[in-house]
Amino acid sequence: MIPVSIVNVTSYTGLELLRLLAGHPEFVVTSVSARSSAGQRLDAVFPQLAAGHNHTVASTTLGSLVIAEKVERTELAFVCLPHAAAAETVLELLAQGSKVVDLSADFRLHDSQVYEEWYQHTHPAPALLETSVYGLCERYRERIATSSLVANPGCHSTTAILALLPALAAGLVGPDVIVNTITGISGARRSPKLSSLYCEQTEDASAYNLDGHRHLPEITQELEAAAREGGHPAQLRLTFVPHLVPMSRGLLATCYADFKEPSLTSEEVRAVYADYYANEPYIRIVDTAPHTKWTSGTNLCLLYPTLDRLTGRLVVVSCLDNLVNGAAGQALQNANLMLGLPEPSGLPTVPLMP
Amino acid sequence: MIPVSIVNVTSYTGLELLRLLAGHPEFVVTSVSARSSAGQRLDAVFPQLAAGHNHTVASTTLGSLVIAEKVERTELAFVCLPHAAAAETVLELLAQGSKVVDLSADFRLHDSQVYEEWYQHTHPAPALLETSVYGLCERYRERIATSSLVANPGCHSTTAILALLPALAAGLVGPDVIVNTITGISGARRSPKLSSLYCEQTEDASAYNLDGHRHLPEITQELEAAAREGGHPAQLRLTFVPHLVPMSRGLLATCYADFKEPSLTSEEVRAVYADYYANEPYIRIVDTAPHTKWTSGTNLCLLYPTLDRLTGRLVVVSCLDNLVNGAAGQALQNANLMLGLPEPSGLPTVPLMP
Amino acid sequence: MIPVSIVNVTSYTGLELLRLLAGHPEFVVTSVSARSSAGQRLDAVFPQLAAGHNHTVASTTLGSLVIAEKVERTELAFVCLPHAAAAETVLELLAQGSKVVDLSADFRLHDSQVYEEWYQHTHPAPALLETSVYGLCERYRERIATSSLVANPGCHSTTAILALLPALAAGLVGPDVIVNTITGISGARRSPKLSSLYCEQTEDASAYNLDGHRHLPEITQELEAAAREGGHPAQLRLTFVPHLVPMSRGLLATCYADFKEPSLTSEEVRAVYADYYANEPYIRIVDTAPHTKWTSGTNLCLLYPTLDRLTGRLVVVSCLDNLVNGAAGQALQNANLMLGLPEPSGLPTVPLMP
Amino acid sequence: MIPVSIVNVTSYTGLELLRLLAGHPEFVVTSVSARSSAGQRLDAVFPQLAAGHNHTVASTTLGSLVIAEKVERTELAFVCLPHAAAAETVLELLAQGSKVVDLSADFRLHDSQVYEEWYQHTHPAPALLETSVYGLCERYRERIATSSLVANPGCHSTTAILALLPALAAGLVGPDVIVNTITGISGARRSPKLSSLYCEQTEDASAYNLDGHRHLPEITQELEAAAREGGHPAQLRLTFVPHLVPMSRGLLATCYADFKEPSLTSEEVRAVYADYYANEPYIRIVDTAPHTKWTSGTNLCLLYPTLDRLTGRLVVVSCLDNLVNGAAGQALQNANLMLGLPEPSGLPTVPLMP
Repeated sequence: MIPVSIVNVTSYTGLELLRLLAGHPEFVVTSVSARSSAGQRLDAVFPQLAAGHNHTVASTTLGSLVIAEKVERTELAFVCLPHAAAAETVLELLAQGSKVVDLSADFRLHDSQVYEEWYQHTHPAPALLETSVYGLCERYRERIATSSLVANPGCHSTTAILALLPALAAGLVGPDVIVNTITGISGARRSPKLSSLYCEQTEDASAYNLDGHRHLPEITQELEAAAREGGHPAQLRLTFVPHLVPMSRGLLATCYADFKEPSLTSEEVRAVYADYYANEPYIRIVDTAPHTKWTSGTNLCLLYPTLDRLTGRLVVVSCLDNLVNGAAGQALQNANLMLGLPEPSGLPTVPLMP
Repeated sequence: MIPVSIVNVTSYTGLELLRLLAGHPEFVVTSVSARSSAGQRLDAVFPQLAAGHNHTVASTTLGSLVIAEKVERTELAFVCLPHAAAAETVLELLAQGSKVVDLSADFRLHDSQVYEEWYQHTHPAPALLETSVYGLCERYRERIATSSLVANPGCHSTTAILALLPALAAGLVGPDVIVNTITGISGARRSPKLSSLYCEQTEDASAYNLDGHRHLPEITQELEAAAREGGHPAQLRLTFVPHLVPMSRGLLATCYADFKEPSLTSEEVRAVYADYYANEPYIRIVDTAPHTKWTSGTNLCLLYPTLDRLTGRLVVVSCLDNLVNGAAGQALQNANLMLGLPEPSGLPTVPLMP
Repeated sequence: MIPVSIVNVTSYTGLELLRLLAGHPEFVVTSVSARSSAGQRLDAVFPQLAAGHNHTVASTTLGSLVIAEKVERTELAFVCLPHAAAAETVLELLAQGSKVVDLSADFRLHDSQVYEEWYQHTHPAPALLETSVYGLCERYRERIATSSLVANPGCHSTTAILALLPALAAGLVGPDVIVNTITGISGARRSPKLSSLYCEQTEDASAYNLDGHRHLPEITQELEAAAREGGHPAQLRLTFVPHLVPMSRGLLATCYADFKEPSLTSEEVRAVYADYYANEPYIRIVDTAPHTKWTSGTNLCLLYPTLDRLTGRLVVVSCLDNLVNGAAGQALQNANLMLGLPEPSGLPTVPLMP
Repeated sequence: MIPVSIVNVTSYTGLELLRLLAGHPEFVVTSVSARSSAGQRLDAVFPQLAAGHNHTVASTTLGSLVIAEKVERTELAFVCLPHAAAAETVLELLAQGSKVVDLSADFRLHDSQVYEEWYQHTHPAPALLETSVYGLCERYRERIATSSLVANPGCHSTTAILALLPALAAGLVGPDVIVNTITGISGARRSPKLSSLYCEQTEDASAYNLDGHRHLPEITQELEAAAREGGHPAQLRLTFVPHLVPMSRGLLATCYADFKEPSLTSEEVRAVYADYYANEPYIRIVDTAPHTKWTSGTNLCLLYPTLDRLTGRLVVVSCLDNLVNGAAGQALQNANLMLGLPEPSGLPTVPLMP
């Protein structure tokens, strides 16, 4: 078994990593940290992990791990801290020789100026931005496999980028793109705030971050790169509006773009997508509008590209579980690649339904 | 008190009319119908209306009304039937001398050919399409007041049209428009079907009707009319994608359009909107992204127009309660106008929260 | 119009009072307070009350009230503070000559020792415990009408007491009573804490306060008093276990007691209840298990007493909206009585459904 | 790999078996049936199982199984039919030499007269009632291992029986027992009916089956048997009231009984329970009130026995995922035992949270 660690394990992504790693054939979590809960056992924070008084083997279970201030050195660390705090810790871990999957935004943008503009924070290690790899397995599988620092993509970003990559790489669409996402509350952090209360979020839908969501620059960076590599360079005029709705998990992006190949049918567009993602283990090109629930607890991303009958516009509906393919699952997929394990190890594909 | 009737009272819109009319100072429901429940008391279908054994006055309450096959003649009938069935009943009611607010789509489109194309049904009274009034009070208040047949707008249509009217009337936007809506499950009918089950809809988001939702032609009809009247004729290229999320009530439209007046700021756009809707009793131009929950149980429509910082695109977020301003509330507002009552009678503006 | 004030208006009960008072024919809210939000307009805290930029009348609406540190003197104040803080404010308000409906627990228990045992706090005005009235209108209507301090009952208490009063007053049941309640999250306070987050509460049911919920002593006090007055004194052995489930509003109590009159049928028991609550405006003895949703937004309390077929035990299912009859609605009913207004003013009976 | 089949796979329990079996190391589903969907591929009914156009291996996946009228003979069949229909199919499968786990109620009661009284149906094979085993692994592990027909317990029954077994076996409680359960909507069948609609079930709590739920006789049968075997025979006076609340999964039983050993403390009672269930793989005696969510997607049953401080009554809170330990998980645990596989194969213990 390969020892791994989780930094800021008391976050929702930390908790989801615990769940996925519990079913992983090769990884074992040996060290966890979280500043505010240091010294507590894991099952004091997450009582669902407690072994129960009737089990004499209690001391060997997940729940009995003691949360540390800082994780011990392991083969690979998953960093679940917010941006800025993450970078600092990542540098320490790399210095100790750990490989790192960083779930924050700190190493996703190649341009430190763009980072500083969007995150209002001076980047502590701009040089690393050139060597870190954007952890979208479908795009950078080979580079991820040899990297020691992978920047796990944002959840909105993953959903939107996977939805639009094939179209931009093939030059099928113009530069005017609208990404409209709908997501559950677990995307907000596991911390007490009024707006995340059950009573505030149930029976409610709203748009947020209309002045610019921080996942926007990574979406643009990755889509423009794919367009360039595909020989169809474009400078996108991307509008991205996320929405919050009363569910715990799930993220659905509906993407709109001008379509430049009027001779193609919806079926032919789906064939282009199927080709681009041929045999990708977690991507499924489906022929009916997908539901977020079909991905619940799995690492799947479902894609439904179609042409609007009246306007000819390309509409791509894309969905995934924001805590799995949008966070912990993709992080684990990256870790599998980084340590030479079979890429799909420990990643479910049959959802929890209903 | 003025007697009114409700056709197909066992629908969710019928039930919502019962709630609103119970608080109305002048209307009293004297006759209700529903084919499948004819002969039953209203409180057999809706037990929440039962008076209780401890009340000797039970026989005079709402719950004791007996559901008929067809409503009796009253001053005004609210027709809550699905399209096609509605038209037939509307003709009978008009012949009896009742005024009618029809909540179906049967009299919303002026062009019977468009109707037949979208509803796959020959219109039974195309002549009436010329005299019926589209019941959007903010646009047709005067004509509604003198009409005997008002076609109550669709819920998506109301939300989208109110969001875009000022911009199109003022010629501020180009013809490429995207309307992305998010709505609760009560928009589906109150009838047993697998996809509307709690277990299927909770923790789920999905797009639907990607091949064209039937509210699209009315949105186009009304927006193009407003543009023409404003001196800025346009032939819209409108893409409309509705989404279903786990809530009972609420509809939020996020509308995207190319903005043609780069000199204007978001604040100035909001001033244009405030001017257009000056003192409209149920419209509120707000300066932060609105929540559907802020309208729950009320007849409000909240509008937040803003310019996307990076692309300059106009984004308008609009929301309402699909069963109130999106259906029964707007129908009651129309009825108030048609019978010369104060327009806001019986229409709440303080939402049920949390 | 009669001016009233709300202390700690930023609570969920304060918000619900605002909604109900907005529809009241005689009361007008002229003064509101909340320590942490003092100086802000009400619509800064509750944006759903904002009038919108298109309304020139904005300055006269509810949303434009400025939240004070302390309310001004009005005819009657609703105090929505937590216990201990409430008593202090109540004393000041009474000294100023305001009548007071206190929604906290501070004046519900007649015995200051019981208060101190359960609330771990020395009572600041034990003398007032003798003159304050327990605000259960169905029991103390006359005394409430002449009182200047009414202690509004707890939500669990109201539901359980109303369920068991007739049986205990008539001596139909033994002293062993179990009260099992199920309630929504709005019963927790409107304040940020981890356990009230949407993600923690959705898809979850749990029991809480198994070591004793503070509503227990008031339930015992009131039921024993009713038994005594009915000539059937009893010392109850009451076990009360509340449960939390994923809904915003609603409280359902299932009460179990040994039944002492084997000759009676369920129908006859319901007749006893119907008699006890004859024509009570908000109580309904129903003949099928009631749903909390049937009371949503209303001041109703639905009661379904029945005898368990196999054991002969009395089971009473009782439900109401915890924010209305369980808090703000009952408070308003009390205020109506205290100021000589028609008891049902401003209290809806048709629920918001679906 | 061992081939197994699922009868009436289109039910929620069938779907949950598919999910669990997909993660099982030894079983493979080779045959599925469902009368109303015969001839369709599994992914036509459950689109979440579709492989996607980009996968050339699609034909080998779960989704490509064709639903038959009747399952083929396999090693073991899981029967997910409603009662009466189940018995008929079970007889056929046994005749063909399949082992059977029947998830219906048809073989749970040993006394055919009790069956006929509660199910209003003549039992087609009363003789089998004597040889079939009640599939509660914690009680009948050895007999299950050698049986060819196991009757999987009801979900309420499992939760209540596990909660009370240790107390009754040890003679700690009297015969007056109240079982109050709270459950999610997935316990209702996956079939369209009005009362299971999202809009009807959200924001609602209700009690149901107050005239007697069919799980009652199995609870009584099993608890009385345990009491007898423990040397403390008792004839229970059991009242059981189930409640429905707005969640998909989860079942929580709060059980009340008179406690006969005043010298014991809550901690000592928990020790009795821990002893009774020593090292049971899925039972956990916890020391705080458990949440249904802590079991989501797992085969866990959490038990919290405690003594009511004021009355000394025993209160046991018990919870599990009604589709896993309450149905498909327990069925799989039974199947593991019946085929000599390690009992915990394929049964998760880390829940899907949040």
